[in-house]
Amino acid sequence: MKNVLKLGILGAGGFTGQELIRILSRHSGADLQYLTSSEYAGKKLREVFPALATPTVAALGFSPHPQTLADVPALDAIFLATPDEVSLKWAPLFIERGIRVIDIAGAFRLKNSEDFKSYYGLDHNAPAALAEAVYGMPETDRAAIKNAKLIANPGCYPTAALLPLYVYRELIDFTKPVIVDAKSGTSGAGGRKEKDGLGYSTVYENFRAYKTAKHQHAPEIAQQLSLFAGQKVALRFTPYLLPMYRGILSTAYISPKPGVTDADFNRLATGVNEPFLRFRESVDQIELKSVQHTNFCDFSHHFDAASGVVEIVAAIDNLMKGAAGQAVQNMNLMFGFEETTGVY
Amino acid sequence: MKNVLKLGILGAGGFTGQELIRILSRHSGADLQYLTSSEYAGKKLREVFPALATPTVAALGFSPHPQTLADVPALDAIFLATPDEVSLKWAPLFIERGIRVIDIAGAFRLKNSEDFKSYYGLDHNAPAALAEAVYGMPETDRAAIKNAKLIANPGCYPTAALLPLYVYRELIDFTKPVIVDAKSGTSGAGGRKEKDGLGYSTVYENFRAYKTAKHQHAPEIAQQLSLFAGQKVALRFTPYLLPMYRGILSTAYISPKPGVTDADFNRLATGVNEPFLRFRESVDQIELKSVQHTNFCDFSHHFDAASGVVEIVAAIDNLMKGAAGQAVQNMNLMFGFEETTGVY
Amino acid sequence: MKNVLKLGILGAGGFTGQELIRILSRHSGADLQYLTSSEYAGKKLREVFPALATPTVAALGFSPHPQTLADVPALDAIFLATPDEVSLKWAPLFIERGIRVIDIAGAFRLKNSEDFKSYYGLDHNAPAALAEAVYGMPETDRAAIKNAKLIANPGCYPTAALLPLYVYRELIDFTKPVIVDAKSGTSGAGGRKEKDGLGYSTVYENFRAYKTAKHQHAPEIAQQLSLFAGQKVALRFTPYLLPMYRGILSTAYISPKPGVTDADFNRLATGVNEPFLRFRESVDQIELKSVQHTNFCDFSHHFDAASGVVEIVAAIDNLMKGAAGQAVQNMNLMFGFEETTGVY
Amino acid sequence: MKNVLKLGILGAGGFTGQELIRILSRHSGADLQYLTSSEYAGKKLREVFPALATPTVAALGFSPHPQTLADVPALDAIFLATPDEVSLKWAPLFIERGIRVIDIAGAFRLKNSEDFKSYYGLDHNAPAALAEAVYGMPETDRAAIKNAKLIANPGCYPTAALLPLYVYRELIDFTKPVIVDAKSGTSGAGGRKEKDGLGYSTVYENFRAYKTAKHQHAPEIAQQLSLFAGQKVALRFTPYLLPMYRGILSTAYISPKPGVTDADFNRLATGVNEPFLRFRESVDQIELKSVQHTNFCDFSHHFDAASGVVEIVAAIDNLMKGAAGQAVQNMNLMFGFEETTGVY
Repeated sequence: MKNVLKLGILGAGGFTGQELIRILSRHSGADLQYLTSSEYAGKKLREVFPALATPTVAALGFSPHPQTLADVPALDAIFLATPDEVSLKWAPLFIERGIRVIDIAGAFRLKNSEDFKSYYGLDHNAPAALAEAVYGMPETDRAAIKNAKLIANPGCYPTAALLPLYVYRELIDFTKPVIVDAKSGTSGAGGRKEKDGLGYSTVYENFRAYKTAKHQHAPEIAQQLSLFAGQKVALRFTPYLLPMYRGILSTAYISPKPGVTDADFNRLATGVNEPFLRFRESVDQIELKSVQHTNFCDFSHHFDAASGVVEIVAAIDNLMKGAAGQAVQNMNLMFGFEETTGVY
Repeated sequence: MKNVLKLGILGAGGFTGQELIRILSRHSGADLQYLTSSEYAGKKLREVFPALATPTVAALGFSPHPQTLADVPALDAIFLATPDEVSLKWAPLFIERGIRVIDIAGAFRLKNSEDFKSYYGLDHNAPAALAEAVYGMPETDRAAIKNAKLIANPGCYPTAALLPLYVYRELIDFTKPVIVDAKSGTSGAGGRKEKDGLGYSTVYENFRAYKTAKHQHAPEIAQQLSLFAGQKVALRFTPYLLPMYRGILSTAYISPKPGVTDADFNRLATGVNEPFLRFRESVDQIELKSVQHTNFCDFSHHFDAASGVVEIVAAIDNLMKGAAGQAVQNMNLMFGFEETTGVY
Repeated sequence: MKNVLKLGILGAGGFTGQELIRILSRHSGADLQYLTSSEYAGKKLREVFPALATPTVAALGFSPHPQTLADVPALDAIFLATPDEVSLKWAPLFIERGIRVIDIAGAFRLKNSEDFKSYYGLDHNAPAALAEAVYGMPETDRAAIKNAKLIANPGCYPTAALLPLYVYRELIDFTKPVIVDAKSGTSGAGGRKEKDGLGYSTVYENFRAYKTAKHQHAPEIAQQLSLFAGQKVALRFTPYLLPMYRGILSTAYISPKPGVTDADFNRLATGVNEPFLRFRESVDQIELKSVQHTNFCDFSHHFDAASGVVEIVAAIDNLMKGAAGQAVQNMNLMFGFEETTGVY
Repeated sequence: MKNVLKLGILGAGGFTGQELIRILSRHSGADLQYLTSSEYAGKKLREVFPALATPTVAALGFSPHPQTLADVPALDAIFLATPDEVSLKWAPLFIERGIRVIDIAGAFRLKNSEDFKSYYGLDHNAPAALAEAVYGMPETDRAAIKNAKLIANPGCYPTAALLPLYVYRELIDFTKPVIVDAKSGTSGAGGRKEKDGLGYSTVYENFRAYKTAKHQHAPEIAQQLSLFAGQKVALRFTPYLLPMYRGILSTAYISPKPGVTDADFNRLATGVNEPFLRFRESVDQIELKSVQHTNFCDFSHHFDAASGVVEIVAAIDNLMKGAAGQAVQNMNLMFGFEETTGVY
């Protein structure tokens, strides 16, 4: 373990970059040395993110994106908070150079390249890196993460949906469809820039589903679910845009295996021993306010004997547990820090 | 048909009362003569609802709730926007007096008195009125509404959930559970008064489910669904509180009957000929903004062949189609006005 | 007076156009025949503004902007809800053709062409039309409006600031500066399209001043104030962006003339006899909720003897009294309708 | 200097208590030993504030308010985040016991007991403690704070208003009235409990002034202003409630001394050397988003030569610099920590 890591963030000017800077500027083992941004190149942190600009980091500057590896300083690890195609290009180069990579884009999450092509619209031209990539969900893959060179940091919706389904996995009848109805604040649905569909007058006092037919997080959830189910799982996933900023609340509707009872669900839930998973007794207690600005995932279930449907609800902060917080949790595991450093 | 109806509103000081006054003050066949409010008795409309206070109605005064029928003027119809127990007491008295009643509370919606006791916490001590009450959803019960003495105006969640399920009813396998995941603005979840759970700091930048285990609209949806299904339907219903004011977006997850295709759903949807139902091609187009301050119910479906789940999404304004607008639609039918008068 | 006017709206696809359509579709003397939009040309109203799409108007189509006068049908009047340069070009042409014009842009509000150049960045190349234009604030210019060929419909901030200052004008010491500190929802600060500064993540949970040094409504307020003051008035005007949608609350700080008392202010306030001005006893009662979706301007004053400062607060709905509502009020005056038709 | 302070918070269950706990749980010199709450007595922090509940503090419990000093453990300092009358009673007792007190209520801010009676409705029955109390604004009273036994932590509005006026004080003509027009999110205007005027439906999509005639922060601002002005200053203070949660943006309108120029204002502004004061070049850059969740006060000025009015705008986070953050800054000074510990 190094005492202090030399770190970079590619694409540091967006929401996730901002959150990473906030966390890492308080992390005792982190030394932020390299921040890139196409938009803010040449600016100081104090100009771009005034709310983060304590003296320690206020004078950090944004570099332009690198043209070649020669533009990149010596680093222990780099976070990619970049568009998918940028991650796809750079991750293999960084690995080769010996810089460990935590990719917060979606470039290395889907093991099936056809799904990747279909949902991301890109050819996956880095199959070796893809083969090496570890899905970075500590609760399900802790051992593999420790030695990973390339982490595919999970998507925000998959994090909220999968964590509680993993907890309850042995009770679920995965031959039946799993329905995920997930509601997100705007910071999970788009970037810092105004764009179609995220203007104030479009979002405020409004609510709607989006990308119902084809959201790129659907195959990611299905892939990971199928791994813990040990069988291919049929998934129906619908994301919605909440008129608020921060958090995802995800409801999964599943069918329990025959004979399973509420007591079984309670037993698994209360048996969880993870620093960031918190069981609450009722799904009515799962709310965004309790997890905002934290790395926690709160969850609960409602076992409805009358309909035979079990409802599993979880809440996360999409920028923390759903992005930057989980990324730092992964970094901690990779470099031998206490897993919770900087994110508690 | 009378040209101009003498009308009253019991409980006119709440959100629904306000909306009724707004509609009826512009309705060519309505003459508002009697408004009661425990809180605002003695005040003028201009003091209580300044945004409604055009000269026609600004000087209308709020009376205290009646003590006896003698306190009530001669009226053609009265709207009850009152707590359930008040409706339960007064509806039979008004009917007896020859005043037709549109009850916007929940006192006459559930035909099963045990369910009523269980969900509303009240003994149903008006069985004769209950037997006479007509569930006031024009799209499903138009003929009965015309002659009704007592209308049980549907709940807001039931309106949003049931209308599209009715449209698609013949394609749905009702032997499988119907899941309804419904999200409401705060005006549908509580009254005008601040109370626990609806303070600004509780609702703003937050999102959560509530009454997951036992919301009083669950048996109402199940009862009506079972009527169109011709069999008892198992329902899982979860309501959520959106950090916004106005509207309900309801998603139902259903199993289609064997052999049914997307084309069948499209055929029924496009065949609808109702003044307030509007089919949109994609569920992503169903949004609250398009229905706010209107009596429309927008709906669509997504037929997901891969999972075998069909998703049916609808949006209404909870104060209009979900309460006051539908109530006036019922009044129009009962008194021979054009059904859309005042609510288009 | 014609019974039914043939009307057009140039630039009908924005917030103001939407509000005009809403009002005029319910106005007994209006027949909307011509709606133009660069963005929505070829679309139907039901697609662009679903919340307005009652059958009467749902099938109205948007035309492209005209290339020449030959593209414009015969009309009694046209509303210009267009960029300033478009109004500047088209208003003179419409007048010449005999179509009365209500310009909701800023092209004909400033009588001084140098101010216009300085604040709008355009040369005023229509001096004849400018000379003819009447400032369309009914409470101050009713007689002139009736015969106007071209109305310069007041800006939203000027409407909120000027109406109460006009009421109290004879008590104000106009040799001292008038300070106007005005707060607006986002619908007054920008258009329907997302653009820099009006994205959800920029506006939500935020508050700031904008264009402090040079807002184009400052010279408009100063010009009209100077008219009622009978002397040049020094104005300090600061607008702010509220994290909400609809309404302007404007506070003016003024110095009273020597010897003037609170009783004098009360006397003038209570003596007002205007359909859309409403005095409230305390400035704490002036709020946006009371005027939203109405054409009212609520106002009050606080006479602070200790500091010698009088504070005058007013609230309007920026899209109604501050734009479309006032425009229809002007149309009513121009064509002999009851002034309140369609806007009460 | 002690390495680790034993600390208590009386009234730890409100917004300010929550913020204090958040800060102190990360402060290297703080050991939170005593939290009281009438509402949450007997509960754990993890139940009351789930978003703060990292393992370090999750198990902290809330005690009931003390009945006598015997109920209070040995402490180095205690924060009072209590109603004014509770502070009034307990502050003298704690001082006597040798516990240094930081009162975040308003009980010891006004030196004039008649003003206190008039604005707080209480008799000031602790004149000795009042005489000893130091107004805890580090930028203006740093030396006195270091040795204080009792800190009167400034109000949120006074903090936002006074800090920039102090910076510019020598340029201001204090014989003329100072106008402060200040806008606050709801967390500054009320407590955690729902109460009249802070329900969601009252605040959302609304904006209004409140307590215009008599807000308890008015005499506090006037008192401190008069201290730096060296003369009695006439103040007009109006607070407003923003439809958002966090932050105060305060605009002061002042008259400059004769001959003073914009350059003089710039010189003083850029000469400031304070860890939490940040000058921005334009008042349009002062926004709540840049200071939320920080202890910064951002400020700027606009020198309007035409009207002779200078506008001074500042933004703070009302719960941080306006309450808990400033309180910890004071604690740091009192106990010899680096002033910025825990609040950068």
